[in-house]
Amino acid sequence: MDSDKAMVIFQPSGRRGEVPKGVNLIEASRLLGVDIEALCGEKKVCGKCVVRIEEGHFEKYGVTSSMDNVTAWQEEEEKFINPERRKKGFRLGCVAHVKGDLLVFVPEESRAGKQVVSKAARDIHIDHNPAVRLYYVEVDPPTFEEPTGDFERVCRALERDFGLCNLTIDLFALRRLPNALRDGNWKVSVSVWNEKEVIRVRPGKAESAYGLAIDVGTTTVAAYFCNLCTMEVIDTVSMMNPQCKYGEDVMARITFHMTTPGGLKRMSDDIIEGLNDLVGQAITNTHPPKKKVKKKKGEEGPDEFVEVPEQGKTYLRLDREDIEDVTIGFNTAMHHILLGLDPEFVGMAPFPPVIHHSLDIKARDLCVNINPSAYMFVLPIEAGFVGADNVGVLICEEPYKHEENQLIIDIGTNGELVLGNRHKLISSSCATGPALEGAQLSFGMRAAPGAIERIEIDPETKDVNYKVIGREAWRKYSEPKEMKAKGICGSGILDVLAELYRSKVITKSGVFNKKELKECPRFRINPDNRQPEFVLAWAEESSIDKDIVISQKDVRQIQLAKGALYAGCKLMVKRMGLEKLDKVKIAGAFGTHVDRTKALIMGLFPDCEIDMIASVGNAAGDGCRAALLNVKKRVEANWCSRNVEYIELTVEPTFQKDFMEAMQLPHMTDQFPHLRGIVSDEVLDQ
Amino acid sequence: MDSDKAMVIFQPSGRRGEVPKGVNLIEASRLLGVDIEALCGEKKVCGKCVVRIEEGHFEKYGVTSSMDNVTAWQEEEEKFINPERRKKGFRLGCVAHVKGDLLVFVPEESRAGKQVVSKAARDIHIDHNPAVRLYYVEVDPPTFEEPTGDFERVCRALERDFGLCNLTIDLFALRRLPNALRDGNWKVSVSVWNEKEVIRVRPGKAESAYGLAIDVGTTTVAAYFCNLCTMEVIDTVSMMNPQCKYGEDVMARITFHMTTPGGLKRMSDDIIEGLNDLVGQAITNTHPPKKKVKKKKGEEGPDEFVEVPEQGKTYLRLDREDIEDVTIGFNTAMHHILLGLDPEFVGMAPFPPVIHHSLDIKARDLCVNINPSAYMFVLPIEAGFVGADNVGVLICEEPYKHEENQLIIDIGTNGELVLGNRHKLISSSCATGPALEGAQLSFGMRAAPGAIERIEIDPETKDVNYKVIGREAWRKYSEPKEMKAKGICGSGILDVLAELYRSKVITKSGVFNKKELKECPRFRINPDNRQPEFVLAWAEESSIDKDIVISQKDVRQIQLAKGALYAGCKLMVKRMGLEKLDKVKIAGAFGTHVDRTKALIMGLFPDCEIDMIASVGNAAGDGCRAALLNVKKRVEANWCSRNVEYIELTVEPTFQKDFMEAMQLPHMTDQFPHLRGIVSDEVLDQ
Repeated sequence: MDSDKAMVIFQPSGRRGEVPKGVNLIEASRLLGVDIEALCGEKKVCGKCVVRIEEGHFEKYGVTSSMDNVTAWQEEEEKFINPERRKKGFRLGCVAHVKGDLLVFVPEESRAGKQVVSKAARDIHIDHNPAVRLYYVEVDPPTFEEPTGDFERVCRALERDFGLCNLTIDLFALRRLPNALRDGNWKVSVSVWNEKEVIRVRPGKAESAYGLAIDVGTTTVAAYFCNLCTMEVIDTVSMMNPQCKYGEDVMARITFHMTTPGGLKRMSDDIIEGLNDLVGQAITNTHPPKKKVKKKKGEEGPDEFVEVPEQGKTYLRLDREDIEDVTIGFNTAMHHILLGLDPEFVGMAPFPPVIHHSLDIKARDLCVNINPSAYMFVLPIEAGFVGADNVGVLICEEPYKHEENQLIIDIGTNGELVLGNRHKLISSSCATGPALEGAQLSFGMRAAPGAIERIEIDPETKDVNYKVIGREAWRKYSEPKEMKAKGICGSGILDVLAELYRSKVITKSGVFNKKELKECPRFRINPDNRQPEFVLAWAEESSIDKDIVISQKDVRQIQLAKGALYAGCKLMVKRMGLEKLDKVKIAGAFGTHVDRTKALIMGLFPDCEIDMIASVGNAAGDGCRAALLNVKKRVEANWCSRNVEYIELTVEPTFQKDFMEAMQLPHMTDQFPHLRGIVSDEVLDQ
Repeated sequence: MDSDKAMVIFQPSGRRGEVPKGVNLIEASRLLGVDIEALCGEKKVCGKCVVRIEEGHFEKYGVTSSMDNVTAWQEEEEKFINPERRKKGFRLGCVAHVKGDLLVFVPEESRAGKQVVSKAARDIHIDHNPAVRLYYVEVDPPTFEEPTGDFERVCRALERDFGLCNLTIDLFALRRLPNALRDGNWKVSVSVWNEKEVIRVRPGKAESAYGLAIDVGTTTVAAYFCNLCTMEVIDTVSMMNPQCKYGEDVMARITFHMTTPGGLKRMSDDIIEGLNDLVGQAITNTHPPKKKVKKKKGEEGPDEFVEVPEQGKTYLRLDREDIEDVTIGFNTAMHHILLGLDPEFVGMAPFPPVIHHSLDIKARDLCVNINPSAYMFVLPIEAGFVGADNVGVLICEEPYKHEENQLIIDIGTNGELVLGNRHKLISSSCATGPALEGAQLSFGMRAAPGAIERIEIDPETKDVNYKVIGREAWRKYSEPKEMKAKGICGSGILDVLAELYRSKVITKSGVFNKKELKECPRFRINPDNRQPEFVLAWAEESSIDKDIVISQKDVRQIQLAKGALYAGCKLMVKRMGLEKLDKVKIAGAFGTHVDRTKALIMGLFPDCEIDMIASVGNAAGDGCRAALLNVKKRVEANWCSRNVEYIELTVEPTFQKDFMEAMQLPHMTDQFPHLRGIVSDEVLDQ
C-alpha cells in the first residue's frame, strides 16, 4: 500500500477505500461516498459529525484500527463528547485526521440523508385486547378500624369495580404505590398486565398507556409506537442495527461470537443500547423540538435551549416510563444475540434454537430503559433459520385461516418462506444474502437520496437512462450534474439485472456479453481488481465524483440471491404437492418497491397469476403490532411456532441442481406460459 | 469538653466516651470497652482491625464525625483496604489516630469475641415440600428430522418423567441451557420453582439444592442454611443488622428516612450488603479454611493461600449460585426498608403497611447475590407493627390448630404478641424498646464473653456475686482479675432487676433505696451525669478497666419495657374474654435464657401455670425455615396475615393506666396466688 495513503472503512455502510493520510474524517467520508452531517462546515462548532473509531484488528477487512491511527484529542471535542463516550472511541469527524488504517462507525444521528424508511404502519385489522390495560379506581382510605395495607385496598377496589382477582404487583410498582395513593387522594389509575400483575399505579385519572412493537432486522431496526388504549400508531421510528459492524449477515455475527471472547455480550449490549436510542427517539418526538437561544451580550452562562412547538401540532410529552408494554420480533440469530443466548448451535446442523416458546421478560432484565415494571413479549421462533419475525408475518397474514395456498416471502438479509393454507403450513429459509437489499454490491446503498431506483438500457446504444431517489426527472431529461447519483438501492437491483439482460449487456448465464460490448465505452476491466464492469452513471452525474458501476461479481451476487429464493420456493411447492400457487405475498421493504412483472420474469419465485402477487409491506412488524394490541395474537404466535413444519432446504437432494438452474436469466420460460402477451416475446425467448 | 479529648462512639455496640486525642482507634476501643480484632498486636500487618469512619453530623450523639478527625491515610493500609472501601471510609484501627470527634463502625469481621448466637436451629417438625425441587432427566439430542429447540426438549422429558407441564424458564437459566445440555451429554439436573419455572439447569446428575431462611431483626440478622432435598440445616450464620448505625429501633430508622434525602436507599443498600455478607459467610464455611503460606527465601511473588481442611471434616464447597431459594421474614419497618418501600405511613396512625401479601421477588431485583434466577419469598405481614417475623412465629407454633389459648410473646427490639386458639387469633405490638435485649443500658452488651448473665445480691451486705459468659466460676469463687467482666447482656437484665429488688437496693417503684444504701460503697452519684448508680463489678474485675454499674435510668428502661409488655398482654387477655392463659410461649433470644419464675414474679406477663411457660427459641426464624422447606407453609402464612385481628393497644382507653401500674416491682401479687410456696413470701409481700 502506498505509504502516503491509509485504508479507511466506514460502517455500517461498509464503504471503503484508500485516502491520503492527513485528511480529516469528514473529507475521508466524502472521498468514499459516505455522508456525515457537518452543518457548521467543519468549523468544529456544531458537534454533528460525531463518529466512533473502532479499536482492534479486523481480519475480514485486513485493517488494524486504533485511536493511534488518528490525530490527538482536541479541546474543542470536549463540548460535544463526554468522557464516557470519549472512552468508547468517539471523536469529531472534522477534528480527527487520518494517520493510518481505520474502521470508523458513523452513528445514525451523524448520517446525512436519512434512510427513506418504508416501514410506515399499514392499515391492518386488529381486535383491541392489549396485554396491558388501564383501570381507574377510587379506594377507601385506611382507618383505625380498618388499617388494611395499601395494595390490598387497591385490589379490593379492582375486584369490586372490574372483577379482577388474585392480582400480584411488581416490586418497582409497589415502591410507587403509597405515594401515588396519597398524591391522588386515594383515586388512582392502575396498569394491569394480562389481568395478573399490577405494573404501574398513577395518581388520579390517567388517559392512556403506550407500547412499542419492535422489529429487529439484521440490518434495520424499526418500531411502531402505539397507544394501547386507542390502538393508534402515534409514530414509527427506525435505525440501523448497530451490530452491523460485526458483520452484514447472521452467520458473520455468529462467527464473531465464536471467535471473539466476550463477543456475544458486545453484540447484545450494542443492540440493547440501540433499542434504548430508539425508545429515546420515540419519546423525544412527543416533545416540541428545542431551539438553542444564544445568550445576549453581557449575560453570563451557557446558551439556553427552549421548546419551540410547531403551530397546530399537539405534543404528548411522554416519558420513558409511559411505555408499559413491548413486543419484539427478530430472526433466530438476532433473537439469541439480543437475549444473550449462545447462538453457536443455531449456526450448526441440525440448527436447533435454544427455545421456541415466547418469553415474557422484564424490560429491566434486559436493561431496556422503559417503565421498570413493564414486560417485553418476545415472539416465539419457528426454527434455527425461521425466526420470530416470520411468526410476526404469519399472525399478520393468517394463511392458516384460509383455504387457498399462499406463498409468503419475507426478503430481508435472509429470505424466509412460508407456504400453505388452513390444513398445513411449511416454512424454510434460503440464504439470499443481502444483495436484494442493495448491500454488499460495489455501489449498493440504502434507499436514501441519490440511490438509483429505476433504470432503462438502450439495447442498441447501451446508453443508460435512470432515476434516483430524491429527483423526479430521469437522467435523459436532466443535466448530468443534476443527478447527484450515489449508488444502487435494493429496489433498483432487479431493474438493473432485468435491463442488463434485456439489452443483452449480460447473457442468460449472467456473464458480460463481450461481443455486444466490444465498442461500448461503458464496458471495461477495472484495473485495480481485474473485474469486468459496466458503468451505469458517469462520475460527472454522481455526487461522489466516481463512476457508478455494476461489476461481474455484483451480477453474480444478485443471481445467487434470486437462485436461492427460486429454488427454495420450488422445493416447497413440490413438497406441498402443488401445481400452481394461489397467491404470492412479498413482505419487507423489497416487496414494497419491486415490479411484480419483472420479479416474475426474472424468476424470483414460481409461477402465479400476476394479479395474485401482492406486497404486504412490513408484515413482520405489523405482526408485532398485532401482538402488542391483541393478547390473543400471542397465543396464536405460539401455536404457529410449533405447528409450521420447517423444511431444511440444503439437505433436500434436488436443491443444488434447482439452485444452479435458477441462477439462469430469465427463468425457464415454459414455466410462465401465461406471461406471453404481457411481456415481449423477445425477452421470453432469448 | 476538654480540648485534649475527643468523643468517640463505636457502632453497632453504641459504646461511647471521651478518649485522649492522639490515641489510635484500637486504643480508643479498648478504653471504651469495645473489642476490635488486632491479631498482630498493632504491627499494621494482619489487617484484621478494619473499621469504618462514618461521615456526617449525628444529632442524636451530638458529634460531627469526619475523615478529617483522624490522621491521614498511610501506605500500609493499601494492602488491606481497596480503593472502593477506602472511599467508603474504611481505615485500619491501628493506623488511624483520633484527632477529633468520631462515629466509628466496627464491621462484624473486625469484632473480637463473636456474639454467642442462640439462634441454633430447633428440632421442629416440617413436611418436606420445598418450592424448589430438583429433577434429573435424560433428553434426546436434536436431529435433522427433529430439530426442536433445547428448552422444548427438556420440557418434553420433564413431562414424560415427572408429569410437569406448561413450564417457563428464567432468562438467566435459559442462557446456561444450551451448554449445560451439551456438557452433560444431554443429561441434566433441572431446578424447578413451584412446578412452574425452570430456574437452573446443570449438566449431569446434581445431588442437592440449597436455600436460606433469613430472619432480619432490628438488631440481629440470622439465617439457616438448609439442604432443600434432605431438609438438613447445614449451618447457622448471623450478624448485626448494619442499619443499627441509623438508630436502635424502628421508629429511629423511619425518622432517618423522613429527615435524610436518600436515607431509605442508604438503609436498604446497607441491609442488602449485609445479606450478601451473610451469604458469603454461609458459602465460605463450606470450604476448608485457607492458610497463608509464606514464600520461601529466593522465591518471587506474594505469599500464597492454601486450603487446610480440618481432619475428619467434609466440605461441600458450595458457591453462591448453589443457593436457589430464600425465605425472609422481618418486622414491618425492616420489611419496607429492605424492599425500598416508603415506611413513612407505617409510622403514622393508622399505621397501614404498603402490602400484607407475601412477595416472590427475583433475588437479582434486590441485588442479592445468589443464583440469579432464584426467587426470594418474602413472608406476608400482619399489620404496621406486627410483621412477617410474627407470621413466622405463627406458622411455626401453629396456635390456630389448637383448642387451648396460647399467648406467644416475641421479644426483640419490639415486643410482638399473639393470643388465641383455633377459633380466634388476635395480635398486637408493644414498644418494649431494646432494654430487655441489653441494648441502650449504660453497660448493656450482646451475649458475648464477659457479659454478666446471672447475679445474686446479698440483702444485708449488698455484696454482688455474678457469673459471666465464658467463665464457669462465679465471682465469689474467683480472683477479681479472672472475671474480665464487660457488661450486662439481655439474659442477665431480669436477674439484675429481680436481685436489686429482692436485696432492697431498689424499691417497689424502682427508685434506689437511699435508706438501705447509706453506708454502701457500691451506691454513688455519678459525677458526670448526676445519675444515681450501683456498682455491679469493680474496675479490677473488668476487662475494660471501669466499674460496671447499673444506673437509675437503666432501671427505668427495664421497668418501661416490662410495663409495656405486661399491659399489652393484659389488654389482649381481656379482649379475648379470658380468665387465665393455658400456655405462654416466649420466642426470641430473650426467651431462651430467661428464668421463668423470675419472669413471672417480675410481672412480664399475666398469670399462667409455671409449667405451661415455654421458651420456643427463634420461632420467627424457624417459621422462615418451615416456609423454605414446605411450600404449603407459604399459603398458611398468607392465611395468617389476613386472619389474625390486629389490636392497636395505644388507643385502648385503659392502656396508659395499666402501663403505669405494670411498671411497679414486682407485679401485684394477688394476681399470682399460686406462686406462694414456689418463691419466698418475703419477695411476694414486699
